[in-house]
Amino acid sequence: MTKSELINSIFSKKSYLCVGLDPDMDRLPECILECDDPVLEFNRAIIEATKDYCIAYKPNLAFYEALGAKGWESLEKTMQEIPKDMFTIADAKRGDIGNTSRLYAQTFFEQYNFDAVTVAPYMGEDSVKPFLDFQGKWVILLALTSNSGATDFQLLETKTGNYVYQQVLEKSQSWGGDQQIMYVVGATKPEALAAIRKIVPDHFLLVPGVGAQGGDLKEISLSGLNSDCGLLVNVSRSIIYASSGTDFAQAAGQEARRLQAVMAEILQQIN
Amino acid sequence: MTKSELINSIFSKKSYLCVGLDPDMDRLPECILECDDPVLEFNRAIIEATKDYCIAYKPNLAFYEALGAKGWESLEKTMQEIPKDMFTIADAKRGDIGNTSRLYAQTFFEQYNFDAVTVAPYMGEDSVKPFLDFQGKWVILLALTSNSGATDFQLLETKTGNYVYQQVLEKSQSWGGDQQIMYVVGATKPEALAAIRKIVPDHFLLVPGVGAQGGDLKEISLSGLNSDCGLLVNVSRSIIYASSGTDFAQAAGQEARRLQAVMAEILQQIN
Repeated sequence: MTKSELINSIFSKKSYLCVGLDPDMDRLPECILECDDPVLEFNRAIIEATKDYCIAYKPNLAFYEALGAKGWESLEKTMQEIPKDMFTIADAKRGDIGNTSRLYAQTFFEQYNFDAVTVAPYMGEDSVKPFLDFQGKWVILLALTSNSGATDFQLLETKTGNYVYQQVLEKSQSWGGDQQIMYVVGATKPEALAAIRKIVPDHFLLVPGVGAQGGDLKEISLSGLNSDCGLLVNVSRSIIYASSGTDFAQAAGQEARRLQAVMAEILQQIN
Repeated sequence: MTKSELINSIFSKKSYLCVGLDPDMDRLPECILECDDPVLEFNRAIIEATKDYCIAYKPNLAFYEALGAKGWESLEKTMQEIPKDMFTIADAKRGDIGNTSRLYAQTFFEQYNFDAVTVAPYMGEDSVKPFLDFQGKWVILLALTSNSGATDFQLLETKTGNYVYQQVLEKSQSWGGDQQIMYVVGATKPEALAAIRKIVPDHFLLVPGVGAQGGDLKEISLSGLNSDCGLLVNVSRSIIYASSGTDFAQAAGQEARRLQAVMAEILQQIN
C-alpha cells in the first residue's frame, strides 16, 4: 500500500485506528475454544466486528509462533480474512545480518503479503535495508517504545547531545524515505512526540500503548498528528478482550467504534 | 544446560564449535530436494556428520519461518535429532514488551526445548527479563554484532564516554549473571574482544562470523578465551555448504573436524 492510499483510507474512514490481533490462548472466550481453529475464529469475528472502524490490523507474531506450525496456519488464514483495503503490519521486531533479514522480508512481504514489518534497529543499516528492497512495502522501525525498558538504551544520551532513539530517527532517513519507513513511538511517551516530529515531520508513526499500557489517545494525537494525520494508533487488548463472554466480538466492535469516534473528531481539527 | 555442564562438554570434546543450521532452500544439495522434508533430511545428515566435533547447534529461525507452517514442523523434528548433550540455541533475535517476550520465551524454551535464545537489547530490561525466568535456560544478548551496520548504533559513543554496546554489557549484568546470560560478539571485531573481556570476564560469548563473514578463528580465540574457555564460535555456511554435491555431509564433517582440531590445540594452551 502506498502512503497516499493509506492517507486516503484514513480520511475516508475518519480513523487512524490499528487493531492488534494478539490471540492469547489464556484469554480467548470459552465459547471459541471448542472450534477447530480458535485463533482463526476469534480473529475472524474481531475483524468482522471492527473493520468499519479501523484502517489497519497488526498481528503480533509471538502469539502465533507460540502455537507452533498450527499457529502459522492460523496466521495465513487470518491474512485472508482481512479486507484488501486494510494496511497490515507483521509485528515481528525482526532484524539480523543481511541474508537473514532478506529471508524475513520475503516471508512477511511475499508469503504472508503483509504491507509492513516492525524491525529492531540495533544491528544497523544492513539489517534494515533488505526490507526496503520490496516495492510498496514498509519498514516500521522501533524508535522510542512504550515499555519501561525504553530508558535503558533508547534514552541513553550520546556524545553529540541527543538520545540513541533520535540517532535512529536521523540515521535511518538516509536508508529510505517517508514512503517506506515509519517509526514506533510509544503512547506512554507523549512528551517526546514533539521532539520526534521535529526530526521526522512527514513520517507516519505507529503508536502502541493506548489502553492496557496506559497511553491517552487525545493527548498523543494532539502531540503527534501532522497534516497527513501521520499516526497509526494501535490498540490491542482493550478492544479484543473488551468482553470475555459470547458477546466478545460485539464488545470489541463497540470499543473500536468509540475510539473511531474520538479520532473522527480529532481529524476534523486538521482538515 | 548449566554453565558447568557446558564447560565440561567443551573440555571433554575439545571443541567450542557451534554449527549453524541455516537450511537455505536455494543452497540445499539437489540430491536432498526430492525428499518429503528436505530441511529435516539436510539437518539430520549435517548433525550426524558434525556431532563429534561440535558442542552446540544454532538453527537460525528465519530459514524455518520462510517455509511457513512446514518449516516449523521441520524445526521441531530437527530438535529431536540433536543429541541431548548438545547446547541448543534458537537464533531468533527476539525482544518485545513483557507479555510478548514471555510468550517468545515459552515457545523456544518449553515447546521447542532450546537451551538458549538470542535476544535484541534495544527495548531494555523488561523485554529481556521474561526470558531469564526460565530455570536452566539462557539469554544470548546482542552486544557487538559481526555486520557492518554494527557501527550505526552499537558503536555510538555515549555521553559517559563508552559505546552503546558497552552499556548493554554493563547494564544487563544487573538483570542476570554469567549462569544465565551470554553475549553475541562478532568475530569480525577481534580488536574489541579485549575491551569486552574487561567488562564481562566470566561470561560466555557467542561469536558468529568465522568463515563466510571473514572472521579468523585463531585471532578471535586468543583475544576472547577465558579460563573456562568462555567462547562458543558459530560457523554456518562454510560447514553446511562445504559441498553442494552428494558428499555434502561428508564435507561438512571434514570442515567441522578441521575447526575442532584447531580448537583442541588452542584449548591446550589454557589448560
